[in-house]
Amino acid sequence: MFERYLRNVYEKTPLIHCITNYVTVNDVANVLLACGGSPIMADDKEDAVEITTICNGLVINIGTLNKSTIPAMFSTGKKANELSHPVVLDPVGVGASKLRTDTAFKLLEEVKFSVIRGNISEIKTISKGTGTTKGVDADASDAVTEEHLDETIAWAKQLSKKTGAVIAITGAIDIVTDANKAFVLRNGHPMMSKVSGTGCMLAAIIAAYCAANPDNHLEAAAAAVGVFGLAGELAYDRLVKNDGGNSSYRTYLIDAVSQVDAETLKGGIRIESR
Amino acid sequence: MFERYLRNVYEKTPLIHCITNYVTVNDVANVLLACGGSPIMADDKEDAVEITTICNGLVINIGTLNKSTIPAMFSTGKKANELSHPVVLDPVGVGASKLRTDTAFKLLEEVKFSVIRGNISEIKTISKGTGTTKGVDADASDAVTEEHLDETIAWAKQLSKKTGAVIAITGAIDIVTDANKAFVLRNGHPMMSKVSGTGCMLAAIIAAYCAANPDNHLEAAAAAVGVFGLAGELAYDRLVKNDGGNSSYRTYLIDAVSQVDAETLKGGIRIESR
Amino acid sequence: MFERYLRNVYEKTPLIHCITNYVTVNDVANVLLACGGSPIMADDKEDAVEITTICNGLVINIGTLNKSTIPAMFSTGKKANELSHPVVLDPVGVGASKLRTDTAFKLLEEVKFSVIRGNISEIKTISKGTGTTKGVDADASDAVTEEHLDETIAWAKQLSKKTGAVIAITGAIDIVTDANKAFVLRNGHPMMSKVSGTGCMLAAIIAAYCAANPDNHLEAAAAAVGVFGLAGELAYDRLVKNDGGNSSYRTYLIDAVSQVDAETLKGGIRIESR
Repeated sequence: MFERYLRNVYEKTPLIHCITNYVTVNDVANVLLACGGSPIMADDKEDAVEITTICNGLVINIGTLNKSTIPAMFSTGKKANELSHPVVLDPVGVGASKLRTDTAFKLLEEVKFSVIRGNISEIKTISKGTGTTKGVDADASDAVTEEHLDETIAWAKQLSKKTGAVIAITGAIDIVTDANKAFVLRNGHPMMSKVSGTGCMLAAIIAAYCAANPDNHLEAAAAAVGVFGLAGELAYDRLVKNDGGNSSYRTYLIDAVSQVDAETLKGGIRIESR
Repeated sequence: MFERYLRNVYEKTPLIHCITNYVTVNDVANVLLACGGSPIMADDKEDAVEITTICNGLVINIGTLNKSTIPAMFSTGKKANELSHPVVLDPVGVGASKLRTDTAFKLLEEVKFSVIRGNISEIKTISKGTGTTKGVDADASDAVTEEHLDETIAWAKQLSKKTGAVIAITGAIDIVTDANKAFVLRNGHPMMSKVSGTGCMLAAIIAAYCAANPDNHLEAAAAAVGVFGLAGELAYDRLVKNDGGNSSYRTYLIDAVSQVDAETLKGGIRIESR
Repeated sequence: MFERYLRNVYEKTPLIHCITNYVTVNDVANVLLACGGSPIMADDKEDAVEITTICNGLVINIGTLNKSTIPAMFSTGKKANELSHPVVLDPVGVGASKLRTDTAFKLLEEVKFSVIRGNISEIKTISKGTGTTKGVDADASDAVTEEHLDETIAWAKQLSKKTGAVIAITGAIDIVTDANKAFVLRNGHPMMSKVSGTGCMLAAIIAAYCAANPDNHLEAAAAAVGVFGLAGELAYDRLVKNDGGNSSYRTYLIDAVSQVDAETLKGGIRIESR
């Protein structure tokens, strides 16, 4: 079922415009190439709107948020909306500072997002104005567990209803939901949390999947989350064989994104709907 | 014949000032170290001119062009001209936006470039004001093929005559030409297009080669293109053995740049002059 | 003796705020994860002070110094001082330009640093207003040798007395000293100089070690230098087995930082006090 979303990415090679942080931008570029898409970065307000018009999708990532690039987030977001390009928000560290929180909420008012992807603390902050964001990582106290999974899905559905966006909460257990239907995914590996920028990479992959699959952003986003989780597992197998650490794992993870094909996805995705 | 250009880089360790995009800057730094040079990055207008004076060459790369760093491109370009340092232009994405196009053309008016390196779409844009730049990648319709190779060389020679710069068009077939003499190179591997920033890396290597070989920028640039193409081939051999993807390939590519020695270059470079 | 500093980092997972250059920022992030800490980057003056309050330590690195981020260096430095967070200065390229030199000296006036880490040329510039900084690398004529080791330690102790900071001079021989007691370390490998940003990485590790060990910044910094030097040795062993170049070495180096445990440190650190 999810394989066709993957195939569409490889067939269409969607060009994804990324306004993203300078910490993990290179991995975002290479993971887009790995997944079958193509990256372009531009964040000057005089450059970005034009660049987005030649693209197929947009990611706005507020890590290392800088006042000089905020205007481009708004103008390109609106332009992408006009052009019906999917727009993905990655609200890195929202709740950790006023600038990040205010910018995220203002973006949510002025831009229509196709998908909002964050860790549980970030999405909680967006949903409830609370959450205990510890920098850019989810707080342990927020972790999605089996016990309160249904409860989390319930408020995530509400958030989707309110924002019109597919909500992707990623962590040990991933939730991808719209207002009506949620997918729960259980792929991935804890080692992914030892690489800076796995969330940023995933947000970009989601954008590529949505751009190549305009008819169903919910399932496209779920497929992207499945691919990345599977890549995390394949990368871990390779890591064990090679006695590496987190930097090798980063390399293997991006490699593995290019190695997950339709068959691997079909056989390996651990997904249920709720 | 080309080996002496390589040896000079290792002997002189040219320090290359890079004003470059934040997507691939780390790879540019490490590939300069790999090829026998040394990198320094500085783009604040109050910092960059002074930094360029202690360097031996300059690369100006307009990827992720930002209005705050454009002034430094002009002031350092002029200073490098004064000091007779080679200056390489990498017009990333020229034609894709007004800001990039205008900046590239203004740079060409005010700074004398030793080498202009781009993909065929970018160089076409500079030459003819046309070209169908699809973001930062060459458009398939522009591709250099055997059939119109002579025609491409002809207008590239004209562009060299007009700009005074060696023109390096890189892709599956590479062309490096001045107004009179062109080299055609057929090294490299298609996998290079799956790594973000191979063009940026090559532009920096060309700068190192020109800085270490002031007497012949044409042949120095051709040698640099040959070294990088050979590195792409060596890296692919290693990739096949290790079942990796594009992120491993990136690592192997930079590694291989440091492993191409005079013998490898002599034996492996596939070059003809036209 | 030094093992407890390492154990404290893994137990406390200090969150380190980095205002650092865009060339090596990703490696800094991943090496912080590798050493047992956690990174966050923020450099907008409206964002950075708030971010630093949720952190446990701060690194200020003046590579690719940009006027737009200098204000955040001062405001976060002062805030970190208020909160008694350790603050590490990495004066990349001080002496190479007026902007870098002026900024470093002004930071030294207005912010109290726990540790200043640089290569010998950078620390000399800070100490004596001289030094022959060749860009971002130490000049060969400045190199710390056995002959003038005691002399170097003597002026480094004076610099520590004057600034109140632990002074870490890193290179082939490393010196870590306060006003009274110096450690000399002889770990590491020359290959480390072929990777861009090893100094930046080490400065961040030192910040993590100081944040997790507030009682003894001198020994914490020495432990960090020992861990990184040992990682350089382990990485070199792995490089030889795998026929790699500097890009593989970068990966192995970060990996190895995560692989140096208390036992490795105890058995491998080559340290003496003077």
